[in-house]
Amino acid sequence: MSKVMIIGAGGVGTVVAHKMASMPEVFTEIMLASRTKSKCDAIAQKIGGNRIQTAQVDADKVPELVELINSFKPDIVVNVALPYQDLTIMDACLETGVAYLDTANYEPKDEAKFEYKWQWAYHDRYKDAGITAILGCGFDPGVTSIFTAYAAKHHFDEIHYLDIVDCNAGDHGKPFATNFNPEINIREVTQKGKYWENGQWVTTEPHEIHKPLTYPEIGSRESYLIYHEELESLVKNFPTIKRARFWMTFGEEYLTHLRVIQNIGMARIDPVKFKGVDIVPIEFLKAVLPNPGELGENYKGKTSIGCRIRGIKDGKEKTYYIYNNCDHQVAYKETGTQAVSYTTGVPATIGAMMYLTGKWKAPGVFNVEEFDPDPFMEELNKRGLPWNELHDVDIEL
Amino acid sequence: MSKVMIIGAGGVGTVVAHKMASMPEVFTEIMLASRTKSKCDAIAQKIGGNRIQTAQVDADKVPELVELINSFKPDIVVNVALPYQDLTIMDACLETGVAYLDTANYEPKDEAKFEYKWQWAYHDRYKDAGITAILGCGFDPGVTSIFTAYAAKHHFDEIHYLDIVDCNAGDHGKPFATNFNPEINIREVTQKGKYWENGQWVTTEPHEIHKPLTYPEIGSRESYLIYHEELESLVKNFPTIKRARFWMTFGEEYLTHLRVIQNIGMARIDPVKFKGVDIVPIEFLKAVLPNPGELGENYKGKTSIGCRIRGIKDGKEKTYYIYNNCDHQVAYKETGTQAVSYTTGVPATIGAMMYLTGKWKAPGVFNVEEFDPDPFMEELNKRGLPWNELHDVDIEL
Repeated sequence: MSKVMIIGAGGVGTVVAHKMASMPEVFTEIMLASRTKSKCDAIAQKIGGNRIQTAQVDADKVPELVELINSFKPDIVVNVALPYQDLTIMDACLETGVAYLDTANYEPKDEAKFEYKWQWAYHDRYKDAGITAILGCGFDPGVTSIFTAYAAKHHFDEIHYLDIVDCNAGDHGKPFATNFNPEINIREVTQKGKYWENGQWVTTEPHEIHKPLTYPEIGSRESYLIYHEELESLVKNFPTIKRARFWMTFGEEYLTHLRVIQNIGMARIDPVKFKGVDIVPIEFLKAVLPNPGELGENYKGKTSIGCRIRGIKDGKEKTYYIYNNCDHQVAYKETGTQAVSYTTGVPATIGAMMYLTGKWKAPGVFNVEEFDPDPFMEELNKRGLPWNELHDVDIEL
Repeated sequence: MSKVMIIGAGGVGTVVAHKMASMPEVFTEIMLASRTKSKCDAIAQKIGGNRIQTAQVDADKVPELVELINSFKPDIVVNVALPYQDLTIMDACLETGVAYLDTANYEPKDEAKFEYKWQWAYHDRYKDAGITAILGCGFDPGVTSIFTAYAAKHHFDEIHYLDIVDCNAGDHGKPFATNFNPEINIREVTQKGKYWENGQWVTTEPHEIHKPLTYPEIGSRESYLIYHEELESLVKNFPTIKRARFWMTFGEEYLTHLRVIQNIGMARIDPVKFKGVDIVPIEFLKAVLPNPGELGENYKGKTSIGCRIRGIKDGKEKTYYIYNNCDHQVAYKETGTQAVSYTTGVPATIGAMMYLTGKWKAPGVFNVEEFDPDPFMEELNKRGLPWNELHDVDIEL
């Protein structure tokens, strides 16, 4: 008998609700809550079978969250709302003594930082209260860190070079759309690049470093070095790492659109006074861009995300490439959303399962690579995100 | 002794105020009014000498306009506000019996039409009231139509082919900015192309037809066939015209920015509900783009706008090219605004002068080519917009 509360009814929330509903042996009672209850109701209705209860909650407001958590009494809260809301939801979990899981780190509204410091600062309070918090349990961050932990456990004595590679070779047929919340997506992609090398962070201009990389079943795609949040926890948790980088593929048209969006001021995250109202340009842009949750139907092609690792095993140099490919159409047929939401929602579901089955349970605030990767890796293969590994191949990096 | 009221305190209003202030022999008393009085005060202060009185008025509201006109009692109202406001200002002039002049045709808020029909519909009422209304007295529309009338009067028995060519070879040093109100600019440029041929309008896809044209003192620039409002009145007033087209130069980067602005939905003119407020994307975009009035200081290079005409004189084929080149820096030094505002504001000033000196005065609503071009052409040479003419040259079109 377990109870889980999902907060957030976007594409990822849709996937999490679908997946959890299909696993009654783990998730007995499921509540889906968001600012807009009708979005939850629509998802619940599509899933059917009275599997999903729904509720309205403003995740910016701790008292509202506390009241809802106290009335439903979940064993864990799965936060797939906006990253701005991580701290209020963590506060509410702390106050009610309920476990916490999310898929993206907290981000202040007024600056794009992608740092874990605000959430890590909760560690002692969670530890003292005997509550588990699992941070960044989507695909990236999430599975990429678990892949790294799996590699460290089974295939390396020391990891020296880590390159996380994220390719979306899908085509949604729109001139421009982002694959998840445009506000977060554009913030992430337009920031300066950053990677870890020899004990310090090296900063680059946005998209300054790029090269073609070959992705399995896809082929060559221009890949750009960007900063991604899991690098911060991975270099802390795997101190033998000499260099850690993150690469993402972008099409030329996508980058042109981003460049223009910045040039015209629509990527700004500071408010502009308009008709007496404070309006943040990137938030308004989100309102006019295609809804990422609705891209699924015509989305064709695959994503390919993985880790390319070099290091030492038994005194010898070794290379290792572990990845998952996910097909947009297959994801859509199962859950009604495309692969970018699917690859985030399935790991969040598995993470909650790990907690509820006692495999990932420890008082404090943890990144996913701090837990045993093996049971999680086993579930990935069963729950729609099978992985492949290649040993001693040319990893190009 | 004459009194003139300028409505609108943008770049064009700034130029009109400067020019009128420098011509006390024509403009004895000048009032500058706009929605934001502080903008008028700033312009008046810069001009100095107590030449400009200022007032606040909401040009969307006829009663407010009527009250202000009745209190100041101008001989003519020069409308350099938004094209949306042409009809309310025309209503107020009709009610108060005051002459009217504008620089751009009325446009309904909810559709981009660029048609004169709404304003032409006032003709009988203005005629019956004995009031003069002068439409489209900027550069284009405006001087381009006066150039055509001048050509028809002095150099042609029949004009057959008219090509208006508008080149802005200036560089403002910003990644993207529009030269006048971005809302109107983007509406105009992103619409379908349209030209007159053999008694009917031919429609093209946006930017479908383009070719390099050579501009005097500038060189070759890719020029795009777009629709421009003066074509409508010119083919009506010069019925011998077999084909009338309008060409404008755009840089590749400018067009890329426009394409993206459309792709992302920011060129939309229908309201989007955001935070409970109706927001028209293109109006919000205007709020985040650089203010065209502030581009002047670093604007380098020239504009070149003119008419390339083919027709018959004394039974023989003839070509004729009449144009003005205007330097952004020179315009800025004189009035604090760049050439695009300057080339619009100076003709509006001369048009008001034509009315006040009795040279252009007739009850009814008129386009500028319906008046005698000669006194206007003479003033262009004296007031900062000298023109050149070339006979029997290769006009490329």
